[in-house]
Amino acid sequence: MERTEIEEKYKWDLSKIYKDPQDFYKDITTCQQLLDQLAGFEGKLTQNIDNFIAFLKTRDTMSQLINKAYCFAHLNCDVEPENQGYQQMMATVMTLLQQAGVKLVYVDNEICKNDKSVTAYLKDDRLQAYRYSISNILAYKPHLLDDEQEMLVAKIDNIADTSEQVFDSLRLDFEDVEVNGKKETLNQATLSKFLKNKNVQVRKDAYHQFFKEYRKFENTFALTLSGVMKKDAFYSDIRHFETPLEASVFNDDVPSSLFFKILDKANRQYRPLFHRYNRLKKELLQIDDFYNYDLNVPLVTSVSKKYTIDQCFDIINKALAPFGQDYLKIINQARDERWIDYYPTAHKRGGAYSSGSYLTQPYILMNFIGDYDSLSTLIHELGHSVHTYLSCQNQEYVNSNYRIFVAEVASTVNETLLINYMIDHAKSNQEKKYFIYEQLENCVGLLFRQPMFADFEHRLHMMAQNNEPMSSQIITDLYAKLNQEYFGEDVKMDELVGWSCYYVPHFYYDYYVYKYTLGMTVALAIVSRILSGDSKQVDRYLEFLKSGGKESPVDLLSHAGVDPLDDAIYDDAFKYFEDLLNEFENLSK
Amino acid sequence: MERTEIEEKYKWDLSKIYKDPQDFYKDITTCQQLLDQLAGFEGKLTQNIDNFIAFLKTRDTMSQLINKAYCFAHLNCDVEPENQGYQQMMATVMTLLQQAGVKLVYVDNEICKNDKSVTAYLKDDRLQAYRYSISNILAYKPHLLDDEQEMLVAKIDNIADTSEQVFDSLRLDFEDVEVNGKKETLNQATLSKFLKNKNVQVRKDAYHQFFKEYRKFENTFALTLSGVMKKDAFYSDIRHFETPLEASVFNDDVPSSLFFKILDKANRQYRPLFHRYNRLKKELLQIDDFYNYDLNVPLVTSVSKKYTIDQCFDIINKALAPFGQDYLKIINQARDERWIDYYPTAHKRGGAYSSGSYLTQPYILMNFIGDYDSLSTLIHELGHSVHTYLSCQNQEYVNSNYRIFVAEVASTVNETLLINYMIDHAKSNQEKKYFIYEQLENCVGLLFRQPMFADFEHRLHMMAQNNEPMSSQIITDLYAKLNQEYFGEDVKMDELVGWSCYYVPHFYYDYYVYKYTLGMTVALAIVSRILSGDSKQVDRYLEFLKSGGKESPVDLLSHAGVDPLDDAIYDDAFKYFEDLLNEFENLSK
Repeated sequence: MERTEIEEKYKWDLSKIYKDPQDFYKDITTCQQLLDQLAGFEGKLTQNIDNFIAFLKTRDTMSQLINKAYCFAHLNCDVEPENQGYQQMMATVMTLLQQAGVKLVYVDNEICKNDKSVTAYLKDDRLQAYRYSISNILAYKPHLLDDEQEMLVAKIDNIADTSEQVFDSLRLDFEDVEVNGKKETLNQATLSKFLKNKNVQVRKDAYHQFFKEYRKFENTFALTLSGVMKKDAFYSDIRHFETPLEASVFNDDVPSSLFFKILDKANRQYRPLFHRYNRLKKELLQIDDFYNYDLNVPLVTSVSKKYTIDQCFDIINKALAPFGQDYLKIINQARDERWIDYYPTAHKRGGAYSSGSYLTQPYILMNFIGDYDSLSTLIHELGHSVHTYLSCQNQEYVNSNYRIFVAEVASTVNETLLINYMIDHAKSNQEKKYFIYEQLENCVGLLFRQPMFADFEHRLHMMAQNNEPMSSQIITDLYAKLNQEYFGEDVKMDELVGWSCYYVPHFYYDYYVYKYTLGMTVALAIVSRILSGDSKQVDRYLEFLKSGGKESPVDLLSHAGVDPLDDAIYDDAFKYFEDLLNEFENLSK
Repeated sequence: MERTEIEEKYKWDLSKIYKDPQDFYKDITTCQQLLDQLAGFEGKLTQNIDNFIAFLKTRDTMSQLINKAYCFAHLNCDVEPENQGYQQMMATVMTLLQQAGVKLVYVDNEICKNDKSVTAYLKDDRLQAYRYSISNILAYKPHLLDDEQEMLVAKIDNIADTSEQVFDSLRLDFEDVEVNGKKETLNQATLSKFLKNKNVQVRKDAYHQFFKEYRKFENTFALTLSGVMKKDAFYSDIRHFETPLEASVFNDDVPSSLFFKILDKANRQYRPLFHRYNRLKKELLQIDDFYNYDLNVPLVTSVSKKYTIDQCFDIINKALAPFGQDYLKIINQARDERWIDYYPTAHKRGGAYSSGSYLTQPYILMNFIGDYDSLSTLIHELGHSVHTYLSCQNQEYVNSNYRIFVAEVASTVNETLLINYMIDHAKSNQEKKYFIYEQLENCVGLLFRQPMFADFEHRLHMMAQNNEPMSSQIITDLYAKLNQEYFGEDVKMDELVGWSCYYVPHFYYDYYVYKYTLGMTVALAIVSRILSGDSKQVDRYLEFLKSGGKESPVDLLSHAGVDPLDDAIYDDAFKYFEDLLNEFENLSK
């Protein structure tokens, strides 16, 4: 559909950010002036505490404005990539960010060189809000290079992002899929619909027509994927980290043991549970040659409800009722104030995300098609947006930005409350089965699939670190092998499975995917306590949402009542999956 | 056509490089061992002259083997990009090259630090062949960074080439063009055929169907094109050059005044001549709305000969007869020993090039379709290949590699001898007109078009240097504007003209295009002397071909009898164009 055909209330309102594009460029000019002021602090940054505070406040002001401008440019580009005015804004912000990187490259070094003065300053109450972020800079000291090298590295940033940018810019076209003699549009938003079709030929056609386009561009995708791995390995190397993983977890302020714990639980200890589920699917669907493109055929066919956006909000309000009125008020604000861009339109970026900045409201991009997935995605992204909203409301700017690491908790708690609500309010055994099935699928995605992704990504990173060649054949062979092991011997792999790795944007996000698993695991713990009537857990959780990024993820989560380093939460999560599976199997008999 | 359908004698024989892929990997292993030996010279490189000589000889051995392996991998990848075995070889060589870059990063620094010892060593006869190349390293001293920074820069090389690699990897598909009710295949090899069609609808369709695909991927191409400009600006910046142009001409060992001289002559002083030619075209073709996609309609229609490959070699032998038997022997060797891959096949890289290495024969890739263009391209690439062959035969390895800068002379002299032969041996006024027209077109491409390309490329480089945003709109607007100025007011620009810049691979070659103009200018001087019976010029020219890269381009060309810094050779070249144009206009009356 074309964007102009969509009603205003179903599109986000970006005019709240800038009414006039001129205002965007005014902010850019202001930022350039502030940047020059900030550059003028070089050599004097830690001369006295007043200088230091003045610098930090000015930087916050500039940073807020840049984020606002970036937010405007990227949201617009994502829905209208062919609009060159927005592309130009995007290029302008990126250039400004790069300039800021170069001009402020001295800052962390100057702070680390004068760590004694800075540590003394931090005791001053005026710097209270900055304590956590500046202690992170001080901890980075062993990874800082000398001034000249830091300047060189800052300049590299300008040329290092090509792989990710190119991946983002590539929009493929797919052949239509024939369903009952009619041609239907295949794209990133509709693929899943075809894969749920009862007719195996439709599923196979959709799968093939989708991934053969990725194979057609395989050398390009192999370059962008290996390019981003090489980039991560490069930064890890020059910053004296042992591995790209160590560099990544350092930035997240968590121990790398957490990564390996999650992979070990999902990919080794509990994988047989996933294989059991796949075997059950094969039996229930009665497909002898059971392929990976058959895995999405619903096991429960009669309940395939459609939801309008209004119906979605009704359900969401009920499912999230345990959080209380303050939380629900924000949810409805999101709808009424047009935070959300719902429908898929021509050229619009696929998938869904929540974005926003300190000076703007949160924004949600969706490709809503009205099925349960869309409902679930909506409540998921609303989880992020409420988290963003509460963090920005309750924290000073410096602490408002929470790490990806805890972000997925906020979204997954919502998804889990939704599905529990759906299971509990099912009007029949059939409906109950349907939502249990949905939750099983959801658990597969978060508890099993993401750790497999994480394993793949980690191997690619290690290949980059060891300078091993990464041709498309090597990449796709590896991915095909990992998928076969992952799905188990009851599922045959389609010949194109290896190329399906080129479809996953998260591989460009530097050890992102395992955080989903942690988010799910923590969310299951939080939800089960909330639903068992633990009112303290609600308060602790809302407090967590208001905390932004003021502490380390482990501290934030521990204050929310769940310790991510504790084995028990993982064992409980997989036990939850096993219980659901048992219940589903019983209902299916 | 599929590759398997082509007769062996029309495909290059790469089995001469490696019979067995295992041999490729054996050479890689040898290179790795040699690389370790070379790394062991660190700190001892200039301890004494014997060490120094041993290092240089060993490095030459390794470098020859790497080039051989690279040659095998890239030639195979270019004709069979879907063969993952070759892609893997390519990735292996690239990784090895990167490792070599990192492990040998100390070399130039160690030579420069010990420049007094090294300068003394160079007086030793055993180092005679190395004098020019090592004096170039010593001249680079002001641009070298300290050891730690050089190590950092060497590591960057691994991640800096993404833009160019992605551009190379992108293969677009185009809609068929309808000609007389029949669908015909449109691709990079056939575009020019459609643009010569008498039917304006065919030309317009072909132009639109071709460049709308580039527009479809415009954001990707804008990223790769701006990416390579940013990369060049980055290296220029960190190596303390004034501009990317200065960095480029330093590597070529020519003054930047040469670049501006060429642009001034072509884009300012003599551009009215080109506009006059376009006006004549419009009149002769009697097209009122004369568009840029009409410019390739032949002005002389009756002679549109087709040539078989055997006929091409007959003509080539006659045209190049002034060079004597030794030269012709090599030409026929190229045919008989299967240096050449003639025909376009599915997925094969477009265009044409001459490649090869010190340990292999030269190789030529073509997309031969049997028209005069194909014949001319063949003699052009044979010019490069003979140059390579003679340089490798007559120079030690270190001096065998000639610069791009002089390369185009060898190819253009051949093209010019061919067209002169065709004009002189025309069987009718009509045929004479036809070949004069071909030469006018050829001159347009080399004397006028390349300097316009060079101007565009230079502007992009300066935008990158100044951190100006480079969205697709900015890039395509600039290109459209330059094209309008270039073609003049008699030619209307199609709305897609701005996107046609995304089609030109040479913009990824760091100030390459203006070298074509120099090559043509110098070639016209050499050919006119040879044809006027100056036998010394033949000897001097053959000596030039045997000289490889043993001196600076200005010295090499001066020894061939033409000084590229002399205004007169440019004025003569454009005078030659004017004379041809006059003759053509007279014949057309």
